[in-house]
Amino acid sequence: TPESAERTAVPGVSTGLAVTGAGGDVLFVEASLAEKDTGGTGVTLTGQLGEVMKESAQIALSYLRSHGNALGFEVGELAERGVHVHVPAGAVPKDGPSAGVTMTTALASLLSGRPVRSEVAMTGEVSLTGRVLPIGGVKQKLLAAHRAGLTTVLLPQRNEPDLDDVPESVRTALTIHLVGDVREVLELALEPAATAQVAAA
Amino acid sequence: TPESAERTAVPGVSTGLAVTGAGGDVLFVEASLAEKDTGGTGVTLTGQLGEVMKESAQIALSYLRSHGNALGFEVGELAERGVHVHVPAGAVPKDGPSAGVTMTTALASLLSGRPVRSEVAMTGEVSLTGRVLPIGGVKQKLLAAHRAGLTTVLLPQRNEPDLDDVPESVRTALTIHLVGDVREVLELALEPAATAQVAAA
Amino acid sequence: TPESAERTAVPGVSTGLAVTGAGGDVLFVEASLAEKDTGGTGVTLTGQLGEVMKESAQIALSYLRSHGNALGFEVGELAERGVHVHVPAGAVPKDGPSAGVTMTTALASLLSGRPVRSEVAMTGEVSLTGRVLPIGGVKQKLLAAHRAGLTTVLLPQRNEPDLDDVPESVRTALTIHLVGDVREVLELALEPAATAQVAAA
Amino acid sequence: TPESAERTAVPGVSTGLAVTGAGGDVLFVEASLAEKDTGGTGVTLTGQLGEVMKESAQIALSYLRSHGNALGFEVGELAERGVHVHVPAGAVPKDGPSAGVTMTTALASLLSGRPVRSEVAMTGEVSLTGRVLPIGGVKQKLLAAHRAGLTTVLLPQRNEPDLDDVPESVRTALTIHLVGDVREVLELALEPAATAQVAAA
Amino acid sequence: TPESAERTAVPGVSTGLAVTGAGGDVLFVEASLAEKDTGGTGVTLTGQLGEVMKESAQIALSYLRSHGNALGFEVGELAERGVHVHVPAGAVPKDGPSAGVTMTTALASLLSGRPVRSEVAMTGEVSLTGRVLPIGGVKQKLLAAHRAGLTTVLLPQRNEPDLDDVPESVRTALTIHLVGDVREVLELALEPAATAQVAAA
Amino acid sequence: TPESAERTAVPGVSTGLAVTGAGGDVLFVEASLAEKDTGGTGVTLTGQLGEVMKESAQIALSYLRSHGNALGFEVGELAERGVHVHVPAGAVPKDGPSAGVTMTTALASLLSGRPVRSEVAMTGEVSLTGRVLPIGGVKQKLLAAHRAGLTTVLLPQRNEPDLDDVPESVRTALTIHLVGDVREVLELALEPAATAQVAAA
Ligand SMILES: [Ca+2]
Ligand SMILES: [Ca+2]
Ligand SMILES: [Ca+2]
Ligand SMILES: [Ca+2]
Ligand SMILES: [Ca+2]
Ligand SMILES: [Ca+2]
Ligand SMILES: [Ca+2]
Ligand SMILES: [Ca+2]
Ligand SMILES: [Ca+2]
Ligand SMILES: [Ca+2]
Ligand SMILES: [Ca+2]
Ligand SMILES: [Ca+2]
Repeated sequence: TPESAERTAVPGVSTGLAVTGAGGDVLFVEASLAEKDTGGTGVTLTGQLGEVMKESAQIALSYLRSHGNALGFEVGELAERGVHVHVPAGAVPKDGPSAGVTMTTALASLLSGRPVRSEVAMTGEVSLTGRVLPIGGVKQKLLAAHRAGLTTVLLPQRNEPDLDDVPESVRTALTIHLVGDVREVLELALEPAATAQVAAA
Repeated sequence: TPESAERTAVPGVSTGLAVTGAGGDVLFVEASLAEKDTGGTGVTLTGQLGEVMKESAQIALSYLRSHGNALGFEVGELAERGVHVHVPAGAVPKDGPSAGVTMTTALASLLSGRPVRSEVAMTGEVSLTGRVLPIGGVKQKLLAAHRAGLTTVLLPQRNEPDLDDVPESVRTALTIHLVGDVREVLELALEPAATAQVAAA
Repeated sequence: TPESAERTAVPGVSTGLAVTGAGGDVLFVEASLAEKDTGGTGVTLTGQLGEVMKESAQIALSYLRSHGNALGFEVGELAERGVHVHVPAGAVPKDGPSAGVTMTTALASLLSGRPVRSEVAMTGEVSLTGRVLPIGGVKQKLLAAHRAGLTTVLLPQRNEPDLDDVPESVRTALTIHLVGDVREVLELALEPAATAQVAAA
Repeated sequence: TPESAERTAVPGVSTGLAVTGAGGDVLFVEASLAEKDTGGTGVTLTGQLGEVMKESAQIALSYLRSHGNALGFEVGELAERGVHVHVPAGAVPKDGPSAGVTMTTALASLLSGRPVRSEVAMTGEVSLTGRVLPIGGVKQKLLAAHRAGLTTVLLPQRNEPDLDDVPESVRTALTIHLVGDVREVLELALEPAATAQVAAA
Repeated sequence: TPESAERTAVPGVSTGLAVTGAGGDVLFVEASLAEKDTGGTGVTLTGQLGEVMKESAQIALSYLRSHGNALGFEVGELAERGVHVHVPAGAVPKDGPSAGVTMTTALASLLSGRPVRSEVAMTGEVSLTGRVLPIGGVKQKLLAAHRAGLTTVLLPQRNEPDLDDVPESVRTALTIHLVGDVREVLELALEPAATAQVAAA
Repeated sequence: TPESAERTAVPGVSTGLAVTGAGGDVLFVEASLAEKDTGGTGVTLTGQLGEVMKESAQIALSYLRSHGNALGFEVGELAERGVHVHVPAGAVPKDGPSAGVTMTTALASLLSGRPVRSEVAMTGEVSLTGRVLPIGGVKQKLLAAHRAGLTTVLLPQRNEPDLDDVPESVRTALTIHLVGDVREVLELALEPAATAQVAAA
């Protein structure tokens, strides 16, 4: 989609799916690192995030701090530079654990310099060991992804039964990956390192 | 306007537009840095700011901490000197994300020593990557800008449709810039560096 | 059980038993340590834990900080690396002291590199000196363990009388260990160090 | 007035004007610095101050930290010594932004060693750039100043129209200075440095 | 009593007396110190303690920090090792000042390595100078101590008149010490240092 | 009085006067300093103190930190040792500014090693510059002091008119000092330094 392409043109932004009062919707998670020696420290979370969603961000960070190095991410950056995770729109309260994969992906994109593929949307709770746990609202989320022109969706493996409720036309139009571990999410969602370097050149 | 000219005569003050119970109004965002070795540290936010507006200030700071150096701002100052953002009047509660561009501009003005152009007013939410997101109350805000004698207004690109509701006479009297990225805001709102130096001489 | 085997395949995850509105249930406690120089510090507790359950995590940590070294755990790791304890599912509020043994075991597993035996489930409050204190819901918890295919259950010694209420068939199918001190829990629940090393090879 | 003379005999105390349920009243702002190596640090605010009044104190401090050095105040003292601002009486809740000038003056007096003139009372909000903004209750405040034997009152320039409501006899009896910038307040309210030195000898 | 003997077998545990909705009860206070270089710092209080009871723990610590060295306790340990005071059962809210002597004794036991005598129970508020102040529920507390097989009870001197309400049989069965200063409590409650060393050998 | 004599036998305890639901009462303020290298830091306030009374303690400390050195008190001790102010009884909520003189005296006694005279009771708010401000309940407080056998009472100068309401017999029996500055309180309440040294020998 044009919007998703613009948003994810830079590393640190990933495309998630949410359920709102008015059905499903696309949501972007933005992550940034303060440059060294600019006084930015610690972790800042904004976007009127509720308690559960703030915990998702903490889990994403802890996952990367304990597993990220082995996966090739520059997690040492988190030690010296303040990290900020924001979920626009700023005035809309948001909560729930289902942005766990989206937050982990935004942070991994930021730490690797690899942008998130612009055609990919995702939803799923992440546990501290990286397992992807099931979420609600599969039908509305897939409809929203389709409506927004996204073509690939990453869903928790354990949500497979919920695909029965999704209209055949939507299921056919989308490439749906069922994932059990957040490592699969990162492999599917991040552009290859090489492409990223070209983009940065 | 005389008031805006007085207020923005020094770097660190920008002119925003707000919606109040009584229509639109002009609002000033003031930013200051403590001199070194005066015990000022961290970030102080005053003006009875609500949660969302405090988050806007955090986003403005994080944006500058991660992008400001590349844009030529002295963001290293934020590391060693306490920063304070205040929005008068002190007793009036204020909230919402639409002062994002105004806060970013006040801080960028402070860090560059370039005053904000006194004829410019602005409104717009800013995301962590610097995108300018749409806001509400376009009509009341433009009427307030016009009433206050401001002649240039910076609006989010995505608010273009709302211009239909603004009286033709006001639209004609104002120079309206539709912006999609906060970098455009900074380019349009800050006086050139050279002028600033002359002013400081 | 397949789920428990997957979950406890890595050190730092233990299988507990809880009582919910809908009877008993299996719950996993996950613990992680940030790698050094990734900016992770202190103790993070997530999973919408109530006050009492957060205190259980503090007790588990203090127990290991004062007794763990003598028991052969690498408690020095807690000084230099941020520790995170999470109890999925992220959106479900949880409370009560009965996960004390489960939390202590997850942390001891993490600090020793010895995975938790996948067939073992446990429940019990832990005091600061390591005594295992009685808990409620013994019947529902044993039924849940049995239903989930777990074959060994660790229960507080002082809950022995509650076994009378458990159906004979369930009691026979399970190996039930009555424990008075958390050291017994750790001996019964953690795989031997040798096995752990092989697994890591 | 005898009371004001006694109170302002030492640097760090200024005389303000407030509106209470029972009309206007005189109020004193006291500021102190801990001596070095006495364990006093940071900023302490007492006197049952409400949120807005606490923000006024933060603005007064930030104003001095960014502008005070240029005005000749020893702002470096704020780095090494704890500062305390108190507004007696201790049990009476107080709020509002109109003590901004009084707080700035008390702190500037303390940092310069120049006592506040005992015949001067003041009221006015201060912005972060030092502008004096209008306040309410002009009539009651001037009556209270007159009643208390104070002879000079500093008022915000923008409150000039409110002087129409003040009885002619009171206006005549008082020397009223209309001020637009807090620098004017400091020049009018602080005794000259020379006098201060004699007083300290 | 067998339970009290088990509980107080290690230094750092003392036996107190409480009043609950169902009469008197025996309660244990447990204290622990983190080993050095395990990341344990500061003071942790658990057991769902109310405000007053948390203040009792702070008073016990301050008493030992200012008087403990003179009494021969290793208070220097408090500087380098995190201290944790817990009162099981973890889910039962507790409050009131009457565990002051019990908390002071648990901490003194921990710092001296001298276990608390297993036949001793105690109750009493402690002031910051070590005075033992009177408490409520003397009758229920003595009945609970007797019922639990404890044979020695330490009571505040100023509770002497309340002994009239205690059944003669209970008074006769118990050795009751009336104490005015917490030093008397420590002398009566802690096992001699020599015994402690033998126990540690 | 015997109680007051016992309580004030050591430096750091002063005798105050309070108004409770049941008339006036005597109250003791206790202050202690942690010995160096025992991990005690900062300021601890206990005794279920309300907001205003906590502010009184902060004012007492700031007064001594800025004026105490000139008055001969060892205020440097406050930098290196944690200070604790407690007002028994621990479970009784207390509030109000009138213990200001009592708190300042307890701390000055502690820092000088000079005990408080056992026959002296006091009441009065203290401002940050050391002025003694008037308080309520003079009649009940003097009756309580007399009833408790105290013979000297320190009262704020501005409470002189309230003495008319005190029974002649009580006024005659008491030595009443009217004070305007907390330095007078300290001179009247603390035993001479020489006596203190003898006491410590
Ligand atoms: Ca909120
Ligand atoms: Ca892309
Ligand atoms: Ca507020
Ligand atoms: Ca300008
Ligand atoms: Ca919650
Ligand atoms: Ca296993
Ligand atoms: Ca309050
Ligand atoms: Ca003067
Ligand atoms: Ca609670
Ligand atoms: Ca024993
Ligand atoms: Ca309270
Ligand atoms: Ca004495």
